[in-house]
Amino acid sequence: MLMLYTPELLIPSDDDFAEFSRFFAETSTIGATQGGGLHRLAASPEDGRVRDMFCAWLNAQDFIVHVDQVGNIFGLVTFDQNAPYVLCGSHLDSQPNAGRFDGVYGVIAGACAIASIARHVKQSGTIPRRNLCVVNWTNEEGARFQPSLTGSSAFTGAMSIEQALACTDENHISLGTALKSIGYRGSSAPDIRVAAYVEMHVEQGTALEKGKCSIGVVRKTWAALKWRVRFDGEQNHTGPTPMASRKDALLAAAHAIVAVRAEADKHGLAMHSSVGRLQIYPNSPNVVPSRATLLVEFRSESTALLADVATRFQKTIETIARTTGTLVSIEDKSLRDPVQLHRALSDLAYTVSERLDLAVENSVTVAGHDAISMNRLYPTCLLFVPSKNGLSHNEGECTSEQDMHNGLRMLTALLHQICEHPAESL
Amino acid sequence: MLMLYTPELLIPSDDDFAEFSRFFAETSTIGATQGGGLHRLAASPEDGRVRDMFCAWLNAQDFIVHVDQVGNIFGLVTFDQNAPYVLCGSHLDSQPNAGRFDGVYGVIAGACAIASIARHVKQSGTIPRRNLCVVNWTNEEGARFQPSLTGSSAFTGAMSIEQALACTDENHISLGTALKSIGYRGSSAPDIRVAAYVEMHVEQGTALEKGKCSIGVVRKTWAALKWRVRFDGEQNHTGPTPMASRKDALLAAAHAIVAVRAEADKHGLAMHSSVGRLQIYPNSPNVVPSRATLLVEFRSESTALLADVATRFQKTIETIARTTGTLVSIEDKSLRDPVQLHRALSDLAYTVSERLDLAVENSVTVAGHDAISMNRLYPTCLLFVPSKNGLSHNEGECTSEQDMHNGLRMLTALLHQICEHPAESL
Repeated sequence: MLMLYTPELLIPSDDDFAEFSRFFAETSTIGATQGGGLHRLAASPEDGRVRDMFCAWLNAQDFIVHVDQVGNIFGLVTFDQNAPYVLCGSHLDSQPNAGRFDGVYGVIAGACAIASIARHVKQSGTIPRRNLCVVNWTNEEGARFQPSLTGSSAFTGAMSIEQALACTDENHISLGTALKSIGYRGSSAPDIRVAAYVEMHVEQGTALEKGKCSIGVVRKTWAALKWRVRFDGEQNHTGPTPMASRKDALLAAAHAIVAVRAEADKHGLAMHSSVGRLQIYPNSPNVVPSRATLLVEFRSESTALLADVATRFQKTIETIARTTGTLVSIEDKSLRDPVQLHRALSDLAYTVSERLDLAVENSVTVAGHDAISMNRLYPTCLLFVPSKNGLSHNEGECTSEQDMHNGLRMLTALLHQICEHPAESL
Repeated sequence: MLMLYTPELLIPSDDDFAEFSRFFAETSTIGATQGGGLHRLAASPEDGRVRDMFCAWLNAQDFIVHVDQVGNIFGLVTFDQNAPYVLCGSHLDSQPNAGRFDGVYGVIAGACAIASIARHVKQSGTIPRRNLCVVNWTNEEGARFQPSLTGSSAFTGAMSIEQALACTDENHISLGTALKSIGYRGSSAPDIRVAAYVEMHVEQGTALEKGKCSIGVVRKTWAALKWRVRFDGEQNHTGPTPMASRKDALLAAAHAIVAVRAEADKHGLAMHSSVGRLQIYPNSPNVVPSRATLLVEFRSESTALLADVATRFQKTIETIARTTGTLVSIEDKSLRDPVQLHRALSDLAYTVSERLDLAVENSVTVAGHDAISMNRLYPTCLLFVPSKNGLSHNEGECTSEQDMHNGLRMLTALLHQICEHPAESL
């Protein structure tokens, strides 16, 4: 019989759980909405205040804080100057009028787990073979500035610093200017080697809840095809202008929105689609709209299916343009390929969860996460805790305290394992 | 043979035409767009500046200027303290990125015609039996504040002063506050009796151009049914949320927009329909929209047809709500009945036009105008001059200088006739 070496798992103390709950609740007060949610757009004054609170906490716990050029915050705990770092984090920004858990949970749980490990290491006198670092990534949501995943994409080089800082919001304010105004356009990116990245996130789906599981180990992601489509018509009076001579960009957009949904309906559970944003000009009573710009997305596990959809949808919008007398242009196209997350690290997470007696299952993510950015370059593990009814980007988003504590237990044990007993690959 | 008494018609001098062209061009510089149009929303700083320019001109020409509580500007020329006034005007505000002629032409032509008549009267030593007054009505367009026709509706009492001042724009700024900030929340409504109202406007249609006519005498209006419809769905993540459980308010709105157009298509030339404005919340990438509010309008000469449409469209949006899992509510409903304009005054205008050798025809207006408000209480005449290609609410809106001069000739002769030889009814 093969005997596996199974080192002891580090469990947070009662004080650790209490401090996590207190700290998490404290962050929820900044940008709190009346409906119990969060409205904390990237680089807004609220984002600035929660960053201040986060940095103050890190300093009080003896983390060394760095802020890079795109506002990513790194809190370093260094055991061995020559060792690489295991990063753990998520994001403190939110969608408009959204939930308190999305992103925030992963940052606060990561910070508390690392603080707990640091105290344990100090007491035990051992020197772990990996250092630790908690991260808050800038503008994960992409609500105020597009595209999303800005901070983590700039970190991996998928997007240049200049490109990231030049993203503008609806009022033409750039991310660079907005970060400067809240004091987070930094210049002290930490000079570190990255061994691995771990992110804990709320599931934003119902699989864990239905399967009565505490932890999901994300093994793969869906692909996402995102298009910015623009229809140009002609501004005219909605009264006297004969119907036959109207070139109504909003009517064209309406047909496109209906078509986007119909495409998903054709493919059952294999595809999700949406138009989350539609901008209209001049959007004035009594004026036929002359311009409508839609953010269209199709998501599926199958890139072949997405390629089919792309070809068909291109024809659909051309037909819509022809029948509405408008011009159509595709201003931007992006395809996020489906990815596999790091197998050995995910296997380790699965085992740690089992050993902690936390019911675990393998998960798939349809949503994008900073972990998907990091997975391009580094061994990455993405973990889920349950979301009540799968509700997300909604004030009613909820993960129970018990589930959050289970996630903290999981994260503490896993990060500690990686630091103390890193696999060769990490 | 019956001999009709045909008094001499007053014709503007070359100087009058030149001054009109200069003054009109001067107003076009305020809020001018790069594309040769006008962006001068009601009670904006640009509206404030053109009002200042207008009042300075009136004062220089010895008009007595009054500004009432909703910012309507009255320029009075009084011949006989005991006589009632013939009002003539339109509006200086514009739609976003719109044309230079809509409304502005009527105000400037009215002011120049009255100034010309006043000079003539002074020279001739006669005392006309009616006084004259040029008017600039506040927020005719309804682009920034809804509903439209605010100033003229407050003047006739169709809307209370309080209601008018309380209208808010998208940034929750009230009309009262906005008027105050540009110095046009007045208090000196003129204490006058109104004998009649005359408005000259660009046609915003192609009938005059096609019929090679210089003047249209508007005999009647179409009815307009306007609804503000709101769909409420549920904010959620556009990624993981299963399609079947989405409650997408924007998808519901898209179906409604398509249905609004289909309704008009069913009725050929007898109906116009549109959705000019759609507001979406949160309108953020990656979020299923939870709220969509549409301004829907159906216009027709037939109120019976509009009543049918209303019944059918109510059912349509209820079906849309059911199939998209959203809730629908009609936040506002208004029906502007079709009206006949004052017959004797319109007949007089028709005759004057013929006597001036200006090709004239009877017109119908589909668009709303301040004249429609005034027609509720006072003998009202609405006149059109041609619009090139019927284009309106568009930077390319155009009426030739020749056509504008013809309109000024018409207005001067008509107002002079009414003052010197008013019918018993005026």
